Amino acid sequence: MLVLTQGDPAGIGPEITVKAWQAVRHSGPAFVFLGAPELLEGAAPVQVVSSIAEAEAVFPSAIPVLPLGLAAPAIPGTPDSRNAPSVIDSIAKAVALVLDGAASAVVTNPISKEVVQKTGFAHPGHTSYLAELCGVPGQDVMMLAGPSLRVVPVTVHVALRKAIDQLSTNLIMQTARTVAKGLQRDFALSAPRLAVAGLNPHAGENGLMGSEEQDIILPAITALQAEGMDITGPYPPDTLFTPQARAKYDVALCMYHDQGLIPLKTLDMAEGVNVTLGLPIIRTSPDHGTAFDIAGQGLADPSSLLAALRLAAQLSENRKKTA
Amino acid sequence: MLVLTQGDPAGIGPEITVKAWQAVRHSGPAFVFLGAPELLEGAAPVQVVSSIAEAEAVFPSAIPVLPLGLAAPAIPGTPDSRNAPSVIDSIAKAVALVLDGAASAVVTNPISKEVVQKTGFAHPGHTSYLAELCGVPGQDVMMLAGPSLRVVPVTVHVALRKAIDQLSTNLIMQTARTVAKGLQRDFALSAPRLAVAGLNPHAGENGLMGSEEQDIILPAITALQAEGMDITGPYPPDTLFTPQARAKYDVALCMYHDQGLIPLKTLDMAEGVNVTLGLPIIRTSPDHGTAFDIAGQGLADPSSLLAALRLAAQLSENRKKTA
Repeated sequence: MLVLTQGDPAGIGPEITVKAWQAVRHSGPAFVFLGAPELLEGAAPVQVVSSIAEAEAVFPSAIPVLPLGLAAPAIPGTPDSRNAPSVIDSIAKAVALVLDGAASAVVTNPISKEVVQKTGFAHPGHTSYLAELCGVPGQDVMMLAGPSLRVVPVTVHVALRKAIDQLSTNLIMQTARTVAKGLQRDFALSAPRLAVAGLNPHAGENGLMGSEEQDIILPAITALQAEGMDITGPYPPDTLFTPQARAKYDVALCMYHDQGLIPLKTLDMAEGVNVTLGLPIIRTSPDHGTAFDIAGQGLADPSSLLAALRLAAQLSENRKKTA
Repeated sequence: MLVLTQGDPAGIGPEITVKAWQAVRHSGPAFVFLGAPELLEGAAPVQVVSSIAEAEAVFPSAIPVLPLGLAAPAIPGTPDSRNAPSVIDSIAKAVALVLDGAASAVVTNPISKEVVQKTGFAHPGHTSYLAELCGVPGQDVMMLAGPSLRVVPVTVHVALRKAIDQLSTNLIMQTARTVAKGLQRDFALSAPRLAVAGLNPHAGENGLMGSEEQDIILPAITALQAEGMDITGPYPPDTLFTPQARAKYDVALCMYHDQGLIPLKTLDMAEGVNVTLGLPIIRTSPDHGTAFDIAGQGLADPSSLLAALRLAAQLSENRKKTA
């Protein structure tokens, strides 16, 4: 049984939750929604439950909800920071349920950084908060997984200039180790193949267009190869995502956000899933935001949430086998 | 009649030239090869000609060649800088033939920067040399065009750090004007739609992750809109290349090499064409290098050269109509 968090009550989370439930109510994977029941009521049958065990039986006929209260009425498209504590509470309780062993994985609905940060939430998003809740602060690594491609940006939500400043041999090595371990444990890949992108055009062309490949990236690859990891590169970024190139690796380690996110979203926009590696729990989420601009209009596409639910269930199965 | 340059004699140029001729000898577009006849002889019928007019009649039965000499024998896969003058001469003569009106467009085979620079060639590649030959130094703009997408990187072959340093409102404006003019004159787009990518993740998210969008990019867009250009942005780079996004523009203006080249090659690897805008002549080239590693083995794919020949012919037709 998966736990699905509330996300921002004014975003598209409630709508895609209902649509996802309609799509999988009979086939599974089953999930329990951890949030305010009134966000779903009217759009689908809802049943408040008091435990994960109870939720299982309910799922084919109604969306099981472990209820949380809201401080203010939810108005689609109009976020209200008074509801931020409820948004954060949903995440914390979902993690606790998985750490306890009651549920198998957390799937998170989108939240708005701006809304939760107004109430003192100090994290730039879900992932670092989840790492803190799990007692492994700083260990979280974001992977985006689609049907065509898996990418891990080594640096994430910072200006491009700062991303270049943050790059280090150590950061690349730590990230690669977390990724390799995650792919082994949860993705059933016994010897995952990692391909590392260069930072500069043509991967620097032997130093003609930048030296980070030689100074920072290559030393990390060499050291990891010495540890026995199947890792290669640095590759020219522009040809790393062609079908021929993708056939040769299981995950691409990218040096900055858009180097990984551009090919992922270009190829797998609707079905990309955000997976957090490096945590003791399994956590996935749709690869999009709250979409306040279309909330409440029936326009939201549940594909990414569905892919996130299915992947979370599959990773849980894999982890059981490798445990 | 198109003029096809020799490119590096040790690269895949001769092989893809033969394969392209075999594909289009009856259908066209017709081209004349400006280089050493012995590079093609044995692989296809070759006929040395002395003028463009003569080449036309020859094309269905043999590859017409305006002959140039080589200083050293061409060995596939083993470039020889003694042949650099011949490589450069081919480019200069091809441009002269188009400037004279004898030929309609230049299509260039791949050259090796390292090889030609050894003999004092001061340009980082074809494009700036072409601009100099045409008497418009610094006016060249590189566009990559594929069946799915057209992109123009505003900064090109420099380290990513330097690319960020080079970005300016003025550079974006000059590039955009050249692109808009080129799409109008040669691509038969009377009111081309330009979409501008941000530099930072999420296009900076209102300054949270970088300020170049507000300080540099947006002022350029606003000023160009005031000139009547159909230009919008800055858009979050990662979602700018989805099918839905691509439907809304004719060309994406990208802030750095890989921001444009990653989606282009991911979507249109084999059929991408490099088009030089801003010149008085039409010039295209395949979107790949000399591929010394596979030269002479019969493995080279002529798709990109074929696409370059076809696009050059189409642009020439369009220009005639708009002239």
